[in-house]
Amino acid sequence: MNRLTIVKVGGKIVEEEASLKQLLSDFSTISGSKILVHGGGRSATAMAARLGIETQMIDGRRITDKATLEVVTMVYAGLVNKNIVAGLQALGCNAAGFTGADMDIIRARKRPVKDIDYGYVGDVSDVNTSELRLLLNEGITPIIAPLTHDGKGSMLNTNADTIASELAVALGSSFSVDLVYCFEKNGVLANPDDDNSVIPYLNKNTYTEYKQTGAIAAGMIPKLDNAFTALNNGVARVLIINANNLTRPASTGTTIVRE
Amino acid sequence: MNRLTIVKVGGKIVEEEASLKQLLSDFSTISGSKILVHGGGRSATAMAARLGIETQMIDGRRITDKATLEVVTMVYAGLVNKNIVAGLQALGCNAAGFTGADMDIIRARKRPVKDIDYGYVGDVSDVNTSELRLLLNEGITPIIAPLTHDGKGSMLNTNADTIASELAVALGSSFSVDLVYCFEKNGVLANPDDDNSVIPYLNKNTYTEYKQTGAIAAGMIPKLDNAFTALNNGVARVLIINANNLTRPASTGTTIVRE
Repeated sequence: MNRLTIVKVGGKIVEEEASLKQLLSDFSTISGSKILVHGGGRSATAMAARLGIETQMIDGRRITDKATLEVVTMVYAGLVNKNIVAGLQALGCNAAGFTGADMDIIRARKRPVKDIDYGYVGDVSDVNTSELRLLLNEGITPIIAPLTHDGKGSMLNTNADTIASELAVALGSSFSVDLVYCFEKNGVLANPDDDNSVIPYLNKNTYTEYKQTGAIAAGMIPKLDNAFTALNNGVARVLIINANNLTRPASTGTTIVRE
Repeated sequence: MNRLTIVKVGGKIVEEEASLKQLLSDFSTISGSKILVHGGGRSATAMAARLGIETQMIDGRRITDKATLEVVTMVYAGLVNKNIVAGLQALGCNAAGFTGADMDIIRARKRPVKDIDYGYVGDVSDVNTSELRLLLNEGITPIIAPLTHDGKGSMLNTNADTIASELAVALGSSFSVDLVYCFEKNGVLANPDDDNSVIPYLNKNTYTEYKQTGAIAAGMIPKLDNAFTALNNGVARVLIINANNLTRPASTGTTIVRE
């Protein structure tokens, strides 16, 4: 099977000019087929503030009312996505930006209201990769914004880590997929205050232990849950690394392992 | 040759919920391959105003400074484009939104400064349709936002009529292309104040005459220049119609003819 690298990169890195430039330069050197999934939360919050729209977050998730959905659609699919696409084109990487609505790649269900009404937030229901595979085979590099659609005419706001994991699983039967989560830290840390305490290998048992001691908490938990889901569903390799190490991912950061 | 219908639709129609809904419903019934090229100028002007960015227009062209480029990228590629894509998906039309940067479809040169500095406005230099053709043959309907890129990392603002005409010409060797310009009037009018004075057929000679009498003026001139350029460069048919007549274009509006 051909190799496919799916890189997910967080908001902060793609939203600052210097770090974005470095990231795109590194990403463009990855050989073989590749996909970039990006965030953009900080830009969305900043744009909402400029428009006088209040941002409400619960457990790191954005409450997405109608006005906020417009902002994230503009910022993720417009500003951030096209900035990346134009930047990669300048590096000779033939990129094409998509949301989950384009080519019906990712359909989602509006999250049901239980205790909290998250608004226009989508939980992935269907992933369709037939056109993506066609484009990958033509040498196109898809750039995916963290948006899906409900099949009834509305866009939905969807977590970028989840989109990366869902795409990795859906493409895992056609490609040998490396799923690489990039962020500002050096990997999953045994001590959140010590950037040198990277856990080189993490399996389900050690993950559970670190959660019990509280070393792994908050934002890392959904990311790691996505990582294990991917690994258990046909994805060849899952890595969590510092974005600065994108050109040498296997020798740095945390590798998620089955056993 | 297979038939391809390229519809260009102006800002006002895609920016109001009721007219957009009708347009997408009509557009989705067009048989065979199709492409929609959209504007979004009114939304961009409104968004710029909300952000405290002044809009400057000269002869109907937007002066696009850095802040305005961000606004048009957000509004055209984000808000307007994805609203159309999600709306068409809901109608069973497998749409995919693109700018000229995506898949390197349309490269442009930043317009040189003569009397006026238009800023980040692009004049089309290269059109590459190889991936578009692949997607059209797979049944995908491309939705094109009026943005191009310079190949050096910057997006550029480009007139939607021109993009429609350039795509029609570039695809004219692979498809029998109908290029349909939709707007709020019933066609090209012999008397701008009389909506029933539609000129059914217009050739270069009659066009020149109407320009001399002043009946055809202002915004219609670049649109018609694009129309004649397309017709003289391999496009099978060019129509200028009311968006309400999209399901029966040939029997209404103005047909641009060679002789």
